[in-house]
Amino acid sequence: MASGGNGLLLSRVASGDGHGENSSYFDGWKAYDMNPFDLHSNSDGVIQMGLAENQLSLDLIEEWSLSHPEASICTPQGASQFRRIANFQDYHGLPEFREAMAKFMGRVRGGKVVFDPDRIVMSGGATGAQDTLAFCLADPGDAYLVPTPYYPAFDRDCCWRPGIKLLPIECHSSNGFTLTREALVSAYEGARRQGTRVKGILITNPSNPLGTVMDRGTLAMLAAFATEHRVHLICDEIYAGSVFAKPEFVSIAEVIERDVPGCNRDLIHIAYSLSKDFGLPGFRVGIIYSYNDAVVACARKMSSFGLVSSQTQYFLAKMLADDEFMARFLAESARRLAARHERFTAGLREVGIACLGGNAGLFSWMDLRSMLRDKTPEAELELWRVIINQVKLNVSPGTSFHCNEPGWFRVCHANMDDETMDVALDRIRCFVRKYQTNNNKRKAAAAERWAASGARPLRLSLPRRGGAAAASHLALSSPLALMSPQSPMVHAS
Amino acid sequence: MASGGNGLLLSRVASGDGHGENSSYFDGWKAYDMNPFDLHSNSDGVIQMGLAENQLSLDLIEEWSLSHPEASICTPQGASQFRRIANFQDYHGLPEFREAMAKFMGRVRGGKVVFDPDRIVMSGGATGAQDTLAFCLADPGDAYLVPTPYYPAFDRDCCWRPGIKLLPIECHSSNGFTLTREALVSAYEGARRQGTRVKGILITNPSNPLGTVMDRGTLAMLAAFATEHRVHLICDEIYAGSVFAKPEFVSIAEVIERDVPGCNRDLIHIAYSLSKDFGLPGFRVGIIYSYNDAVVACARKMSSFGLVSSQTQYFLAKMLADDEFMARFLAESARRLAARHERFTAGLREVGIACLGGNAGLFSWMDLRSMLRDKTPEAELELWRVIINQVKLNVSPGTSFHCNEPGWFRVCHANMDDETMDVALDRIRCFVRKYQTNNNKRKAAAAERWAASGARPLRLSLPRRGGAAAASHLALSSPLALMSPQSPMVHAS
Repeated sequence: MASGGNGLLLSRVASGDGHGENSSYFDGWKAYDMNPFDLHSNSDGVIQMGLAENQLSLDLIEEWSLSHPEASICTPQGASQFRRIANFQDYHGLPEFREAMAKFMGRVRGGKVVFDPDRIVMSGGATGAQDTLAFCLADPGDAYLVPTPYYPAFDRDCCWRPGIKLLPIECHSSNGFTLTREALVSAYEGARRQGTRVKGILITNPSNPLGTVMDRGTLAMLAAFATEHRVHLICDEIYAGSVFAKPEFVSIAEVIERDVPGCNRDLIHIAYSLSKDFGLPGFRVGIIYSYNDAVVACARKMSSFGLVSSQTQYFLAKMLADDEFMARFLAESARRLAARHERFTAGLREVGIACLGGNAGLFSWMDLRSMLRDKTPEAELELWRVIINQVKLNVSPGTSFHCNEPGWFRVCHANMDDETMDVALDRIRCFVRKYQTNNNKRKAAAAERWAASGARPLRLSLPRRGGAAAASHLALSSPLALMSPQSPMVHAS
Repeated sequence: MASGGNGLLLSRVASGDGHGENSSYFDGWKAYDMNPFDLHSNSDGVIQMGLAENQLSLDLIEEWSLSHPEASICTPQGASQFRRIANFQDYHGLPEFREAMAKFMGRVRGGKVVFDPDRIVMSGGATGAQDTLAFCLADPGDAYLVPTPYYPAFDRDCCWRPGIKLLPIECHSSNGFTLTREALVSAYEGARRQGTRVKGILITNPSNPLGTVMDRGTLAMLAAFATEHRVHLICDEIYAGSVFAKPEFVSIAEVIERDVPGCNRDLIHIAYSLSKDFGLPGFRVGIIYSYNDAVVACARKMSSFGLVSSQTQYFLAKMLADDEFMARFLAESARRLAARHERFTAGLREVGIACLGGNAGLFSWMDLRSMLRDKTPEAELELWRVIINQVKLNVSPGTSFHCNEPGWFRVCHANMDDETMDVALDRIRCFVRKYQTNNNKRKAAAAERWAASGARPLRLSLPRRGGAAAASHLALSSPLALMSPQSPMVHAS
């Protein structure tokens, strides 16, 4: 039976589009899914650079696993725990898991703060953590303020079911997208003028998509603002263990202890996960760490809807408790992330393409502003479709991160091997060089016309009906020029 | 910092009590937690009979696991899959997991229906399945009709965050708590009269807490009613594989194919889980199976908030696909459940205590109506507190299942070994015998007084101020009489 009559049959949540997955931003994923690159079997396919996944150090975890069979309840060494673990359903989680996780969270933050195992609440990944926190902190119609650019799926996590609005705090490239108090105050007051109740400020630190860390002063400013205005500060720190260069990562946990006298800790909440720092998204390990007792209690009850498998808790409890391994893993992972970041950004520099100076995360924030037809979101999306369909790289356009400045792209580079990375770089360089060549030709032609015209301004030499020359101008100045006749974009236009 | 000021700080969901865990019904759990029985180290502790957990056949799964090391990604035999699985984050789930699960769901239902792997949606246990379905099917303020008695945590799953109301369809012991069309219509019309929009009928089949299966005719009546009134029919079948005697289990999946011409399948949804049939609650495997394409699509997107760990998916995919083992496991598990059920109910029959005739589940629905002081919920709770505090068994009172007839108790008996079961039975029998002895004495004394009084009706021989004799009557007729002076109940009264 067709679902055409589902309108009134289902809920507003189900009938609406709040999950965001029907947005055009998923076109890149579809392109990848239809034609995925493989170095050997499909070297002409689309390379997935839209996925913030860490594949660089999983070999270390695999090795650890094999040398620690007692960490699995499915080995002779661990089987004595099978029944206890399979049957374990306390939503507090295995005590050894919470203890190891608290210790590890302290380690990732440089050992400067101590986390309390009793405040560790499990959730189904960071996705589940944000959904749960939103249900705990705000009512439908309330708002979070979020500095731009920000992770697109916050819309799904915070808005879809909990009904929160996300209001942007506008940040700009002029200061490296640093969040300022002025921008925060402006967003806050704008919301209040509209009659919207602001219940929280949601940040990612390290930032996704920027790949930068937030400085201590900004964090202290945020905590002080939260205290002053009695709004929550939700800090997504899921890349805390993926900082690979200076400046060091500073956690809100450290800042509220040292830098914000009088801070109201009831307003401070951290989301964490092992999906990024360990490259274990399949294991669905999300953590809510709140300084508010009532939020801990409520989120723990809600965790019934998305607990971590006890089989996985048990394995991770053993691994996270292995101090020697954890120190080695974090150091080696940072080394590999740094090497990959350098390989990628140096490769782009060869053709004059810059990225925002990042020191964290699994991606770079690539600046293609110079390649836009004009400074509009439409031009960004036009360029993006060329990159997907012609260059065959699934990167993510800045507009999908609510960036207010067209021409930035998030490019993930930790979810592939070096060879694939090199293919991707070759493709980008080839694309940029073609563009530059065409652009230079265009400029030369324009200069020639200019000279030939005797520098008479305003005189345009368009042929009758405007056709060929206008098309030629477009062809030279726009990435569309690089498209083959087979391009779906060409067909569409 | 105290959370006293959290009132406006947190959401209404967090500030309210909708999760139900502050109810007095958790006193039994608290009593158990404070003093848990252990056959060797704490033989005077409270025995947990409030937990519907299946510990009877885990040894078979443990054995299977040890003889199938390839099912674990943490063994040399399975390690080649570690990276793929750890990194796997497609919310459709591992294809092999969905296929094995679909096949297994068919097997559990007697091989009479085929389940489509593409309709298998993962959730964080059955808890997550109901939460997700509620978000998909109804808006806040809408209602589900639910036959009584019903699983208490449906309130948490359907009402807490999705905001659905649960309205009872009253069932009675006179026909073995069978759901009738008259009761359904009455509940439906009652809701409509109140202006409440009924969006669904929620059933558990096999029933928790009754331990009975629903007959084909009732299921067909429900599906026809749903079609006629355009309301959803949500069938929680998490005990489908725990039916241990005739009559056979009939799934709604079978009924809508064979017994309901014109059935609108867009209205039919099944919740399943491996927590009960396999005794794997720690693994957090919930399944939503919907015949409505839009619900499948929406629930799958929501499953991001509570996916099953890929480590666990991988293990279960291998196990569920082992046809020989699955057939053997289900047969042996049913045999053990039947033996345990017989041991328990026969033990009760020795002292004249009956249970509702059940053939499924991990519990019995015990009839202690004859032991109530009077036919009120208060009297049931009074008796319950004696059972918890004096008999030291954490059983669950019928009122917590919204049963409208006081005196029934759900007693779980699959979460312990035979020795513990025997201790529990001894305690119940001893308690009942004391009660019967006291009750007989009371009756004899009353008869004596009656005879001595010359059978003059209406003449009461209460002493002045009503004290001693009234107390003595209470002492003889009420379970309170069995309490020691140390009882918290005595202190409370």
